[in-house]
Amino acid sequence: MLIDNTPSTTIWYDDKDSHVSIIDQRLLPHEYVVSKLQTFDDFCFAIKEMQVRGAPLIGVTAAYGLAIALRVDASISAEEDYAQKLIATRPTAMNLRWAIERIQKRISSCAENEKADLALAEAHQIRDKDIAICEQIGINGLSIIEELYQQKQRTINILTHCNAGWLATVDWGTALAPIYKAHFADIPIHVWVDETRPRNQGASLTAFELSEQGIDHTLITDNAGGHLMQHGMVDLCIVGSDRTASNGDVCNKVGTYLKALAAFDNQVPFYVALPTSTIDWDITDGIKEIPIEERDPYEVTHISGITDDGQVTSVKLVKDSKASNYSFDVTPAKLITALITEKAVVKAESSAIKLLNVSAETE
Amino acid sequence: MLIDNTPSTTIWYDDKDSHVSIIDQRLLPHEYVVSKLQTFDDFCFAIKEMQVRGAPLIGVTAAYGLAIALRVDASISAEEDYAQKLIATRPTAMNLRWAIERIQKRISSCAENEKADLALAEAHQIRDKDIAICEQIGINGLSIIEELYQQKQRTINILTHCNAGWLATVDWGTALAPIYKAHFADIPIHVWVDETRPRNQGASLTAFELSEQGIDHTLITDNAGGHLMQHGMVDLCIVGSDRTASNGDVCNKVGTYLKALAAFDNQVPFYVALPTSTIDWDITDGIKEIPIEERDPYEVTHISGITDDGQVTSVKLVKDSKASNYSFDVTPAKLITALITEKAVVKAESSAIKLLNVSAETE
Repeated sequence: MLIDNTPSTTIWYDDKDSHVSIIDQRLLPHEYVVSKLQTFDDFCFAIKEMQVRGAPLIGVTAAYGLAIALRVDASISAEEDYAQKLIATRPTAMNLRWAIERIQKRISSCAENEKADLALAEAHQIRDKDIAICEQIGINGLSIIEELYQQKQRTINILTHCNAGWLATVDWGTALAPIYKAHFADIPIHVWVDETRPRNQGASLTAFELSEQGIDHTLITDNAGGHLMQHGMVDLCIVGSDRTASNGDVCNKVGTYLKALAAFDNQVPFYVALPTSTIDWDITDGIKEIPIEERDPYEVTHISGITDDGQVTSVKLVKDSKASNYSFDVTPAKLITALITEKAVVKAESSAIKLLNVSAETE
Repeated sequence: MLIDNTPSTTIWYDDKDSHVSIIDQRLLPHEYVVSKLQTFDDFCFAIKEMQVRGAPLIGVTAAYGLAIALRVDASISAEEDYAQKLIATRPTAMNLRWAIERIQKRISSCAENEKADLALAEAHQIRDKDIAICEQIGINGLSIIEELYQQKQRTINILTHCNAGWLATVDWGTALAPIYKAHFADIPIHVWVDETRPRNQGASLTAFELSEQGIDHTLITDNAGGHLMQHGMVDLCIVGSDRTASNGDVCNKVGTYLKALAAFDNQVPFYVALPTSTIDWDITDGIKEIPIEERDPYEVTHISGITDDGQVTSVKLVKDSKASNYSFDVTPAKLITALITEKAVVKAESSAIKLLNVSAETE
């Protein structure tokens, strides 16, 4: 997708000097900075400190991280240590574990001195595949928007929470992929963008993405969506998923559940767009079983923005109260209209989701 | 209630030099500044720019504003002009209209040169009555918390949205009055404080109030409450009301509806504490009939806080996207466990609410 009218991706490998580059998303939308990741610690820092974020992009970054680390030490014990450290950087992200396991499986039977190259080749494949998967999510989701447009014959209003755009993946995004596809198909759309406290990925990233792509959108507080849905101002919601239980419960950025409740109460269709790699087949009850990451309360007590004179600054919002920062919540399957995956649009039900797994095994 | 261990109220009249003083709430919690209101424009500014806010306090401020203005011109046409201008400062606030109408009724048959004094006496009465009403709301709500404590025999966790504390009234508050009463009755309580974007009255005012009073509390984002309720971490919710429809629908700060949905979905009791003066007897369907104030989008695109070096600063949160700022929403009566009023705790149903009106007429 576009930044400053230039087609961009969030992470890429430079063959010439053998390093990985990323967009440092902590500085967006105020500054556009590309960072080189060269050491294993660079990769851990990038994921933990959210230079990169979004389940699919975390997976791709971790894959490259493991590959680059294996250049230094490719012993079994080092590999396991790298893998565990990477998985620990963001406990909720299902794709992270998935990407690491995929690489470990690929290199499990090869010689130690071949591991780094093979892991890098696998990381490239994970990256390429992520792009293809996201584009296919876009194509599958487009048909939902197209159908609504056929019915309504006017601008389609879509609400999204957090950032599940191309900045959360390598390209296209998950929740935003159908929106980009609809835009390219000349369907008139308007996007309500939840700012998504505490880290404000909606305001900083989703609004920025849509702006750069020239898609009509309006920033709102996380509190506003219920009112909009109550008054017919939202035609559908599309959000992403960090981890999807096999019963269809969806763990996504905190606040997603509240929007799903409002959508259900007002008969607004609520879709979750996700690569099947976010599905955790071992979890059958998302609310009970998915552990919720608690991040630093500093993210709640402080916020970063830009001053009138152009300084990116963090300000404190409270005097001396403590804060808590549960960063995700689980939306029960009962509130979800359907899951938009790269394989199919399916109901958020065990029986339908199970079919996605079968097709994965036979692909 | 306490500020810096000194008993305080939000608005008071100084007999010596005949002016009204308020706490300028825009600067809290970072700075404590008392402002004098001397001209009619001072009062309009104070309400419109939210030096004072909260339905009951707006009502009291408007009452004093009309009284002070009548000193300058007490003709019928001036009085009507003042009244209309005051009502227009904050269209959602039911108490504002109620207070103005109460004063106009009181002075309707007196001589022009007596109007200002009579209006001032009435404003004093409105202020005194507000304190008494809020304290009674506290007493009525206390029994609900007491009962829960009898059942659970452990700290009671209460979630509140926005600021319906003493800073929103003259003293005691509405939603926080039962919390203060429970605290004074030595019931162990802990309050989850929604930060309440865009203006963050939870972080700035509710957290500050509770802190000054020594009540245990934790600041959370507006997105977090659903997760907390899903996991048994909230025993009850109490919020305020800016305008209450006669069918029990409640118009309160935007986002209230989302919390009510989460409470309902998780069988958490959801109470609204309100003086009966917020009841709009003419409105029988809150969702359809209550107009929702749209405030400046600047409140969404920007936020104010304090920098590390102690400067209160506003920062921009978005690059160049437009924003919208619906400031209230309507929670349908079906989601509300009960209304805590100064007269009684009643079901949010027309038949029960009607009885409050009968007792008002006969008081």
